[in-house]
Amino acid sequence: MLFSIVTLFPELFGPFLQTSMVGRALEQGAARVRLSELRSFGLGKHKSVDDTPYGGGSGMVLRVEPVVAALESLDEAAAAAGEPPAHRVLLTPQGARFAQQSARSLAGRPHVALVCGRYEGFDERVRSYVHEELSLGDFVMTGGEVAAMAIIEATVRLLPNVLGNEASTASESFSDALFGALEYPQYTRPAEFRGAAVPAILTSGDHAKIDAWRREQSRERTAARRPDLGGAKS
Amino acid sequence: MLFSIVTLFPELFGPFLQTSMVGRALEQGAARVRLSELRSFGLGKHKSVDDTPYGGGSGMVLRVEPVVAALESLDEAAAAAGEPPAHRVLLTPQGARFAQQSARSLAGRPHVALVCGRYEGFDERVRSYVHEELSLGDFVMTGGEVAAMAIIEATVRLLPNVLGNEASTASESFSDALFGALEYPQYTRPAEFRGAAVPAILTSGDHAKIDAWRREQSRERTAARRPDLGGAKS
Repeated sequence: MLFSIVTLFPELFGPFLQTSMVGRALEQGAARVRLSELRSFGLGKHKSVDDTPYGGGSGMVLRVEPVVAALESLDEAAAAAGEPPAHRVLLTPQGARFAQQSARSLAGRPHVALVCGRYEGFDERVRSYVHEELSLGDFVMTGGEVAAMAIIEATVRLLPNVLGNEASTASESFSDALFGALEYPQYTRPAEFRGAAVPAILTSGDHAKIDAWRREQSRERTAARRPDLGGAKS
Repeated sequence: MLFSIVTLFPELFGPFLQTSMVGRALEQGAARVRLSELRSFGLGKHKSVDDTPYGGGSGMVLRVEPVVAALESLDEAAAAAGEPPAHRVLLTPQGARFAQQSARSLAGRPHVALVCGRYEGFDERVRSYVHEELSLGDFVMTGGEVAAMAIIEATVRLLPNVLGNEASTASESFSDALFGALEYPQYTRPAEFRGAAVPAILTSGDHAKIDAWRREQSRERTAARRPDLGGAKS
């Protein structure tokens, strides 16, 4: 899978693309990332990418031409390399909330372009040149770069061969936990820490009882913290 | 404001802390960031931070001792420097969803510690050593580092003197847009791009009409995309 990232700050992605699971996935070739610096598509000798809004108001608006030029350049480069054109995703607070389902959908595509905004927002006409708009949540960011990292991390870990078998199974239970119920409490050594002991049932060796306890804990926690998830996993 | 970050991957934060708005805020002293490498609180000669779960199951669980040692070390360092102890935030899928209100709340605190998880999760006993648990959303990440970046970016921009006056006003309208309605369409030059023209009203010079148009556009967009936000801003 190929990610193309359109950004004014390509340097933000350096260590993210070299570290941990994402770094390993890129190293193993399960995913590739291509950075496209929006500034290089800017206009005039100052390579300007933004301007004041029509109709007044404060803040600067990203112009449509540099963004469209960057997107078209990505597709030209892809075509030249025999790769498919990009599924274009605009990162914007007005987009659909990114969730696990979006990650699954993106993980099924061969080439995804993530367009990171900055400043007050995009010229409205940019929207007709993208396929999808995504938002990380109801909070205000300065730009789309951190959202792009979240999307890449959540998507890459779903790609075939990125997680080992053990980790993969583990993360599936983790993943299930997010979509029917929250995960049950986990404990590891030491058996006691400053007077707080591991629940005795977990060291009982009775796996049927342990499973039942975990299901009940998961149900209670979900009811208490995330009643919107609509009940326990069964 | 001081952020302390407990992480297994401090190198992930390098360019994030040097670039753009966050970089400027740190340079100007409006915010400070202290990185605490969890590995240095690991156990034994391998500096182990995780172990297998009691009761069986796949995946590794972060042990309680290194996390608590890291948190207590942060507070000791703060006390030695005459700084207040940290408000401790655990980044976990089981936490409350991070939103603008959380950013405002964190921005009012002098010292916030963000604890980034990895692997299957934390030993349950970690929870009794933190004040708050936050989640970035319903998707599965490999670790909490990208969530920490999102929280820092959203919080730092609310600190006094971080945004200039113009940008601050702009971002307030942007921020409002997220909490009553989505923002109206923005346009900047050129007046026409590949046949798509800026709406004539925005170049009319009639500011009362422009304001009315923007309110109506905002209302329509919110109704179409985010009916959960409950109506237009007035």
